[in-house]
Amino acid sequence: MKLTFSPASPFARKVRIAAIELGLIDAIEFVPAAVVPGQANEAYSRLTPLKKLPVLILDNGEVILDSYVIVEYLDELSGGGKLIPAGGPERWRIKSEHSMLQGMLDSMLLCRYEKFARPQGTHWDAWHDDHWNRAWSGLAHFARQPDLASRPFDVVAIGLVCVLGYADYRFQHCGWREAFPQLEAFNRAMMDRPSVRISAPPT
Amino acid sequence: MKLTFSPASPFARKVRIAAIELGLIDAIEFVPAAVVPGQANEAYSRLTPLKKLPVLILDNGEVILDSYVIVEYLDELSGGGKLIPAGGPERWRIKSEHSMLQGMLDSMLLCRYEKFARPQGTHWDAWHDDHWNRAWSGLAHFARQPDLASRPFDVVAIGLVCVLGYADYRFQHCGWREAFPQLEAFNRAMMDRPSVRISAPPT
Repeated sequence: MKLTFSPASPFARKVRIAAIELGLIDAIEFVPAAVVPGQANEAYSRLTPLKKLPVLILDNGEVILDSYVIVEYLDELSGGGKLIPAGGPERWRIKSEHSMLQGMLDSMLLCRYEKFARPQGTHWDAWHDDHWNRAWSGLAHFARQPDLASRPFDVVAIGLVCVLGYADYRFQHCGWREAFPQLEAFNRAMMDRPSVRISAPPT
Repeated sequence: MKLTFSPASPFARKVRIAAIELGLIDAIEFVPAAVVPGQANEAYSRLTPLKKLPVLILDNGEVILDSYVIVEYLDELSGGGKLIPAGGPERWRIKSEHSMLQGMLDSMLLCRYEKFARPQGTHWDAWHDDHWNRAWSGLAHFARQPDLASRPFDVVAIGLVCVLGYADYRFQHCGWREAFPQLEAFNRAMMDRPSVRISAPPT
């Protein structure tokens, strides 16, 4: 299998951590890819019209997207129920919380593009602030969870690690550590895992 | 169960069609909701930090997001394997194609916001064209499928119907019917289903 990858992509990081935790990392060839908003990349668009990282390319040529579906696929490949509960109400809670994390990352990327990709003079602060507020309110949601420190290392823990890593990478001064000490403790504990530590975004 | 709903939302339409097809429509109370980019909606943000439609609120108060996870949940509730294959390679093909449709809708909404929500003078054409190209390339991907006319009525068929309906609703002159007669034939056939017809966006 091949995975399109960039060390800057929090979505690619999620799959990388999952692959390491599931013991599948050696079965995946990482293929560097770069996509820039507002710029064409025809070769990559042929792989996926959405032009997003990552996609998983199976040996038979089939392409799996997006990052969450890839994690589900890898989880099933390694027996199932390891990073996503196989059944019961817990399954839906985890899927739903992962959707929240995915949307938080989407909003953070929109904030990043708004501030740093748009040409001078085309910024719309209300849009930026709306999306930042979504991400921040999502952090508050997770910070409120009483079982955060003891939760299993599942796709939600991985997703939250990727959100926090992306906050450090692109929003260094946003102050999430000060605002949410529970998340800071969670993140510090997670960094003990090699999969989380070695996949941290570049500084 | 309650579903937050707007007749203008292609994501809410997807869940509505699924609920009708699965025989669950009478078990769901539709709760009108409105979210506008760049405008706060604190009551709705308390329900979901992402401030997106739809969410499903279970009788025990748990909230399920996003629209795809809700469809999966309803599918399982009605026995499973009806709108999403229960196993095998087909399962991953359907999940992956649905991810593509979801991303196409996300891009179409970004195009809409770029043209009609942003204040005068803050438009960035390259961003709009990049996202429109993603949606359009996605349409081309589905138009190329040889089995489009005979495919089962699953979450991908529903998603594609919602993409085409949203194109009619917000991009009336984009010319998808002329560019992709296969999609026009598919859409016409789908409109024979009451679930698809009655859920079409307002004109």
